[in-house]
Amino acid sequence: MIIILNNSKAAQIKQLLNTHFGGKTDIFTHGNRIALNKVTPDQLTDDEKAGIADIIMDHPGAVQSSRALHPEDTIIKLPHTQIGGYGNFVMMAGPCSVESEAHVSAMAKVAKDGGATVLRGGAFKPRTSPYSFQGLGVAGLKYLREAADKQNMDMITEVMDEEHLEVVCQYADMIQIGARNMQNFSLLKAVGKTRKPVLLKRGMSATIDDLLNAAEYIAAGGNTQIALSERGVRTFDDKYTRNTFDVSAVPVLKKLTHYPIIADPSHAEGHWDLVTPMALAATASGSDGIVVEIHDNPEKALSDGPQALKPKTYKKMTSEVFALHDMLNSFNQQEGAVVNG
Amino acid sequence: MIIILNNSKAAQIKQLLNTHFGGKTDIFTHGNRIALNKVTPDQLTDDEKAGIADIIMDHPGAVQSSRALHPEDTIIKLPHTQIGGYGNFVMMAGPCSVESEAHVSAMAKVAKDGGATVLRGGAFKPRTSPYSFQGLGVAGLKYLREAADKQNMDMITEVMDEEHLEVVCQYADMIQIGARNMQNFSLLKAVGKTRKPVLLKRGMSATIDDLLNAAEYIAAGGNTQIALSERGVRTFDDKYTRNTFDVSAVPVLKKLTHYPIIADPSHAEGHWDLVTPMALAATASGSDGIVVEIHDNPEKALSDGPQALKPKTYKKMTSEVFALHDMLNSFNQQEGAVVNG
Amino acid sequence: MIIILNNSKAAQIKQLLNTHFGGKTDIFTHGNRIALNKVTPDQLTDDEKAGIADIIMDHPGAVQSSRALHPEDTIIKLPHTQIGGYGNFVMMAGPCSVESEAHVSAMAKVAKDGGATVLRGGAFKPRTSPYSFQGLGVAGLKYLREAADKQNMDMITEVMDEEHLEVVCQYADMIQIGARNMQNFSLLKAVGKTRKPVLLKRGMSATIDDLLNAAEYIAAGGNTQIALSERGVRTFDDKYTRNTFDVSAVPVLKKLTHYPIIADPSHAEGHWDLVTPMALAATASGSDGIVVEIHDNPEKALSDGPQALKPKTYKKMTSEVFALHDMLNSFNQQEGAVVNG
Amino acid sequence: MIIILNNSKAAQIKQLLNTHFGGKTDIFTHGNRIALNKVTPDQLTDDEKAGIADIIMDHPGAVQSSRALHPEDTIIKLPHTQIGGYGNFVMMAGPCSVESEAHVSAMAKVAKDGGATVLRGGAFKPRTSPYSFQGLGVAGLKYLREAADKQNMDMITEVMDEEHLEVVCQYADMIQIGARNMQNFSLLKAVGKTRKPVLLKRGMSATIDDLLNAAEYIAAGGNTQIALSERGVRTFDDKYTRNTFDVSAVPVLKKLTHYPIIADPSHAEGHWDLVTPMALAATASGSDGIVVEIHDNPEKALSDGPQALKPKTYKKMTSEVFALHDMLNSFNQQEGAVVNG
Repeated sequence: MIIILNNSKAAQIKQLLNTHFGGKTDIFTHGNRIALNKVTPDQLTDDEKAGIADIIMDHPGAVQSSRALHPEDTIIKLPHTQIGGYGNFVMMAGPCSVESEAHVSAMAKVAKDGGATVLRGGAFKPRTSPYSFQGLGVAGLKYLREAADKQNMDMITEVMDEEHLEVVCQYADMIQIGARNMQNFSLLKAVGKTRKPVLLKRGMSATIDDLLNAAEYIAAGGNTQIALSERGVRTFDDKYTRNTFDVSAVPVLKKLTHYPIIADPSHAEGHWDLVTPMALAATASGSDGIVVEIHDNPEKALSDGPQALKPKTYKKMTSEVFALHDMLNSFNQQEGAVVNG
Repeated sequence: MIIILNNSKAAQIKQLLNTHFGGKTDIFTHGNRIALNKVTPDQLTDDEKAGIADIIMDHPGAVQSSRALHPEDTIIKLPHTQIGGYGNFVMMAGPCSVESEAHVSAMAKVAKDGGATVLRGGAFKPRTSPYSFQGLGVAGLKYLREAADKQNMDMITEVMDEEHLEVVCQYADMIQIGARNMQNFSLLKAVGKTRKPVLLKRGMSATIDDLLNAAEYIAAGGNTQIALSERGVRTFDDKYTRNTFDVSAVPVLKKLTHYPIIADPSHAEGHWDLVTPMALAATASGSDGIVVEIHDNPEKALSDGPQALKPKTYKKMTSEVFALHDMLNSFNQQEGAVVNG
Repeated sequence: MIIILNNSKAAQIKQLLNTHFGGKTDIFTHGNRIALNKVTPDQLTDDEKAGIADIIMDHPGAVQSSRALHPEDTIIKLPHTQIGGYGNFVMMAGPCSVESEAHVSAMAKVAKDGGATVLRGGAFKPRTSPYSFQGLGVAGLKYLREAADKQNMDMITEVMDEEHLEVVCQYADMIQIGARNMQNFSLLKAVGKTRKPVLLKRGMSATIDDLLNAAEYIAAGGNTQIALSERGVRTFDDKYTRNTFDVSAVPVLKKLTHYPIIADPSHAEGHWDLVTPMALAATASGSDGIVVEIHDNPEKALSDGPQALKPKTYKKMTSEVFALHDMLNSFNQQEGAVVNG
Repeated sequence: MIIILNNSKAAQIKQLLNTHFGGKTDIFTHGNRIALNKVTPDQLTDDEKAGIADIIMDHPGAVQSSRALHPEDTIIKLPHTQIGGYGNFVMMAGPCSVESEAHVSAMAKVAKDGGATVLRGGAFKPRTSPYSFQGLGVAGLKYLREAADKQNMDMITEVMDEEHLEVVCQYADMIQIGARNMQNFSLLKAVGKTRKPVLLKRGMSATIDDLLNAAEYIAAGGNTQIALSERGVRTFDDKYTRNTFDVSAVPVLKKLTHYPIIADPSHAEGHWDLVTPMALAATASGSDGIVVEIHDNPEKALSDGPQALKPKTYKKMTSEVFALHDMLNSFNQQEGAVVNG
């Protein structure tokens, strides 16, 4: 349960609760709110009750991730980008894989020209088959860093294991945990010990609660610079799309958690011509940004060519997405949607 | 396969093909295109080949539904509404169930005030349990008709069986086939024999091809006044949403078929506060309209109260959706998205 | 809730409860149990409480289907077959579609030789595409009846609509409602008005509760001669099987409901070589019978050839299944599995 | 493609093919079969073609896992157990988590008494929430080893990361990779470098091909001592079962791959009373063994209590499963099921 304390007595009651329950359960504090795992209201003393404004019983088990404990938006600050928070909107773009120094450099320029401030690209690639291209590794990290620096962009790339966590953190501004590793709890714990911003992608059959609990593994280590990414889930129909893009996960997550939500229409759809309509849909649903794959020659891409936008298509998409986000901001300025009126 | 005929020789080749394959397979003609089911190019004679501009092998089995046979948008014309076609956008709104003459009349006024031109409401209700409210039946049809007429609106309502098809057609401008009846082939055939416009809702685990084949049952009877509706599919996570709204079914269907696509965020989400973001998302993805449930007192609704928008919320939603659709129109006027540039 | 009455006072308390709640809710009685929909224990008077042995709150909403109301197995009695109940096990076999008088007659002999006592075959076929073979209709019913009579077998066939319900009932000993019509509530209600035994197949994404509620529509009309069939559900993987055979639905349903459960490995798997192992699996899980498709020349079958067993394969399967069922009976005679010891 | 070589010319043609394609693609050899990834028959020279008996084009991309390359069963030999191969059947049992030295020792005795030859137990636990019990770690490994040794059993336990791989390999006879790590490719590669037998569990939404490709990551490192485990997948219905036990994955995998298949009804079902019927079902479908969780006091278990069998229930289950497996062996001795007769 999460307790909202009377402001006047907050410090005093926190101390009482910490003394009473400390060591017996997990306790988390945020402002005048305090979360006590597995404690029920009937365990509270009269003195404790006297300082309580409200108690919230219905919240995700991933309590640090919860808006019930932490009502305001988390804002992740990268050198060139703010992710999350009212009015902010981030475009992340780049090739699926880093293919060469020259190629990622060229793609970074395209990404920047289209309004992206974060360059994405894979140096370590989680491929379904061991016989597929596995990425350039550390060389890829270097190329990404140089390409991002040349364009004054931030850089995000995937980390697949603890062994490479240090080197990835050394090069990247933000690290990504892929869908297949969403419940690689050892990796989550290791990332939790860093203070590097992280984009956690939703697993292919992860429920909303699974995703929040995965984030909680990171937060439990002290790293709360977390963004979550919807990238499509597995359903019974994959003939015309690679996955089923669960767009409504965006408003659901915005309601439940304070972390920013980034939508990935490229992996969700798997076909370039569906990326623009679904980038618009995700933006309209309230996402804090879009991550998208681009390539100047998709037929020759070393991975995921069919979903890559070519430069002109990409720039048309971003201009539309930015215009749509501006319009949405104007809607929300008028009124929030908390009460059904 | 679908054959595109040389315009100059179209009439002559059509005759050849009809003589050659007539009675042996299903043949469908649209403009200078002709579809021959289960025929392969090697079965064509040299004379036939001489009049052919192109052959399309890769198209849905539901060939009459296919853009490959029928490239231009189907536009359904109701007395007060056009559904489908560039620039048209329809708002359908009303209560889940018709509850009384006065209530549906009041809801029709709200619907109209928010910009809807089609009133929806259930008189025959397909409820999961036999012990739930089953609808007012024919009395409900009358109340709906009167309420729509008073507001100069069109009216749509569900038909559940052949027994009531005639009476529903008598009152409604457009009939709806519900998700649970999407593969009730006897009903589809019966509706195919009418000339009443029909909104066919996607079944809860219907693939895109299943939906097109269901539409094909109607078209095979001669009724091509069909619109399709995405209303959420079943997946592994239903904790925070009633179904998973497959928004990308909208652009997928727009690519494959000429029928208009109407999105139903109310049934997909099941929670009123997700309806507005997902109505925006569906509009952004390219849908031809939205169907939404409204109620002035959702707690007392006879069915599906939690997903109903109250009047003020509804009107804010429609104003945002209409503004978004206007913006999308301006995007598309600049350029189509057929080539990855 | 379901109330178990003290035997000594059962008649008296039933009368009290009927007087108290009659007309206000749905009431169902079975032996000394009485179900009151949407009534809670606090609404009971002291006099009523005095005659109550126990109250069951946790049961399916489909209360007539529930073992909590009706603990003993339903046994369906056909002229040549008993379906359900300890020790009974039914084999239903036949071609997917009735193809001709001679063919169904030959297949009936094969079915009988393998130990089947119920002949199955489709005269009205629910096909995904309107361009596929739709069945022989009433002629198919006649051929089925004659073929069954010649072998002293019972006959089951699908009914797709109310229009043909009478004629199907005239020819068949048991009628089948297909997966696609599982929530065709109008058809369920019509079948509920007959007294013909019915096999209700689980819809492709129907939950266990959905299936029980569909059965409840039939029971609500007074027809409780119901058997349920698991035939595979839709999941994310259909490369090597047509559907995912939810074998554990068998013991789940055996626990929840008194209706017999018939497993259909043919439609679940879609490939003949998986039918025998999965018929064995379903039998081992506790099903009351198996329904299986056979054909002497699957390559030429008018529908679903790849899943049909040829005669020798079929007979080997049935001999194994019967031996396995005998062994299971011997296990259960020793001890039930109600308590975890 | 996989080439079956003429026995007489096998050595010579292998050399030709290795010279021709070596370094250009992945080549795998098994007996007189040779797999060439991404090579097509038209690339073969006439000399090469002259020594070829047959070419198999249709096989899983995970070619080393494929029966098309490796037709005979893989048999894993542990000190006390053989896993895989005709007639062998393994029972693995133990508590979900190692809870204490005394408890795992007592459970090992129960396991052995019921016929298990492999003791299972979790020392490192992949829990959905970071606030749940995470296992005893290395101490748990020691207790497991001692308990297994005392009963002359083999021991299997899960490894969650490369960091603990060495210590787990030191204590265990067989290591387990959990469902959540099935596509943790870095871990798979690390395990591939060991020569420790491994049980790879199917991910919650992993397709059959995904599972085979995950195994291929291990095999690509040179470790082919692999068994695969079906443990339930995620679908739309989890009210009465934890997951949907995809029993037919057993015969599908037996057909596609030479690795042994172990079924896990405990995790699939999540409820003890469904474990016995589904252990029987999995055995009947052809699995090479069962892994099952036991506990003497499930209410007090530190994890997954509801699915644990108590000792008496467990022993009744194993006696039935063993009897069923004996009967199945007698069926198969008569005739294989490769041709539909």
